[in-house]
Amino acid sequence: MSIDTGGASTLRFKRVGIVGVGLIGGSFALALKTVKAAETVVGFGRSRSNLDVARKMGVIDQIAKGWDDIDGCDLILLAVPVGQLPEVMPVIGPRIGKDTVVTDAGSTKRDVVAYARAAFGRALPRFVPAHPIAGAEKSGAAAARPNLFAGKPVVITPIEETDPFAFKRVRATWQLTGARTVRMDVALHDMALAATSHLPHVLAFAMMNEIAERPQAEAMLSLTGGGFRDFTRIAASSPEMWRDICIANRDTLCTEIDAFSARLSRFRHWIATGDGAALEREFAAARTAREALNASLNAAARPRD
Amino acid sequence: MSIDTGGASTLRFKRVGIVGVGLIGGSFALALKTVKAAETVVGFGRSRSNLDVARKMGVIDQIAKGWDDIDGCDLILLAVPVGQLPEVMPVIGPRIGKDTVVTDAGSTKRDVVAYARAAFGRALPRFVPAHPIAGAEKSGAAAARPNLFAGKPVVITPIEETDPFAFKRVRATWQLTGARTVRMDVALHDMALAATSHLPHVLAFAMMNEIAERPQAEAMLSLTGGGFRDFTRIAASSPEMWRDICIANRDTLCTEIDAFSARLSRFRHWIATGDGAALEREFAAARTAREALNASLNAAARPRD
Repeated sequence: MSIDTGGASTLRFKRVGIVGVGLIGGSFALALKTVKAAETVVGFGRSRSNLDVARKMGVIDQIAKGWDDIDGCDLILLAVPVGQLPEVMPVIGPRIGKDTVVTDAGSTKRDVVAYARAAFGRALPRFVPAHPIAGAEKSGAAAARPNLFAGKPVVITPIEETDPFAFKRVRATWQLTGARTVRMDVALHDMALAATSHLPHVLAFAMMNEIAERPQAEAMLSLTGGGFRDFTRIAASSPEMWRDICIANRDTLCTEIDAFSARLSRFRHWIATGDGAALEREFAAARTAREALNASLNAAARPRD
Repeated sequence: MSIDTGGASTLRFKRVGIVGVGLIGGSFALALKTVKAAETVVGFGRSRSNLDVARKMGVIDQIAKGWDDIDGCDLILLAVPVGQLPEVMPVIGPRIGKDTVVTDAGSTKRDVVAYARAAFGRALPRFVPAHPIAGAEKSGAAAARPNLFAGKPVVITPIEETDPFAFKRVRATWQLTGARTVRMDVALHDMALAATSHLPHVLAFAMMNEIAERPQAEAMLSLTGGGFRDFTRIAASSPEMWRDICIANRDTLCTEIDAFSARLSRFRHWIATGDGAALEREFAAARTAREALNASLNAAARPRD
């Protein structure tokens, strides 16, 4: 893999600030340490015990004493929950050095970009929004591992203000973690995630509740097997995290719910009228698409530029 | 496991007729042969090459020359697609001996019971409808294996006409295959399957098509991972089979689609209005239900009566 570092002779940061040392922030730090791209990693966070764990594990080298420790960082990753960014960004904004690049890990981007525009001022061009799609069921620094991003997609959504050199530098940094970077518009990112992640989660949550609330729930669930188990696996995801994601991406998600509901109504009509030809045509198209996805998912498991 | 054979001193059939020697019919035959409960197995079917494979594999002992070979069978399994039953049942009905029991493997039961009432006449009490929930991606006799039903649920839905001895005998036979039998009303079976199997399939098919038909489909799908892959895995199921199931269970399935759509509308309202408390409450309830299901699915993996 050839990495364009955006003009830097080597991609090596003197001081990396990780704001929010959880699974994502911690794994980012470990990945950069593994390839010797980070000289010193400073961890920022609200939970002292989590930061202590992170330092003992070697995820970070120093625990920040306060926001002053942002000064001197030449790379900053914002990996706190998106809901905390309106509070954190205005504090960090004025401390971003003129050669410092900043990225984030938020799973929605339109809202993050809006916060950044309000908070980062002259540093805005050096903020390169990103979304690593590498969720896992565990959380906290203790769950961090250097290969979390290996082969996983990281969407990078530069905005018109973004400095091309900052974009290349941040992209190269994510690539050093082993991730497969994908450049995308903010709006397309949020739509794609609403359709392929947020909506399936909402459907799985709704499916579980629709069954669990019935008097016959136990008998109904006693008949389920692998298909239902796979379909509803994501219904065991964090309620707090998905509440925040649904609200952060609410407009786009509602558009997706409406489109899906309209399609479901068409399916219902064909079922009610016994239109076997329409159902078979639709189901066959779905199968073709799903089989093509399998093939491309297998190909994507190999890291690429 | 103690098996009540319904008065028979041993559960051993002289001549078992398998009508439709596919994955289900073939595995049923192999399972009974394994426990020496079937002296001779006769296979009925439209595809000579499939029946030849079945005989070579030892799934069946004889290939039926015609419907006359139903005479003398003391156990008959109907394992053809449900859509063929209106044609097959009237032929078999008059040939069902007075000590013969008949069962089936159809994934909807109200329609099968209606066909049987129309076709079986005085033999109706000895027909015991059943639905083994043991789908697999492969089909045909070549995919048959003796342990297909081990630990899997088989729903048995006797009707008011059903002879209690025939019920016990058929239940004991399914238990000999290693299945976990569950007795259920016809209506509850069809509702439970509509909610936990048919609707999830419809949603997964609709989800794939909603994405695949967009100009941005490739970019959208490039961001998907394990969650989406699991959620949509069932969208690769047989279009023909699911067309038939949706139409066979159409009234109940439409009722389920309506209930689900109403719930999705409530979720949409909470998302649109940013009602985080309602979303978190619903998502948390779903997670609790999903985690409980995991626990009971693990327990159900052990065969029981």
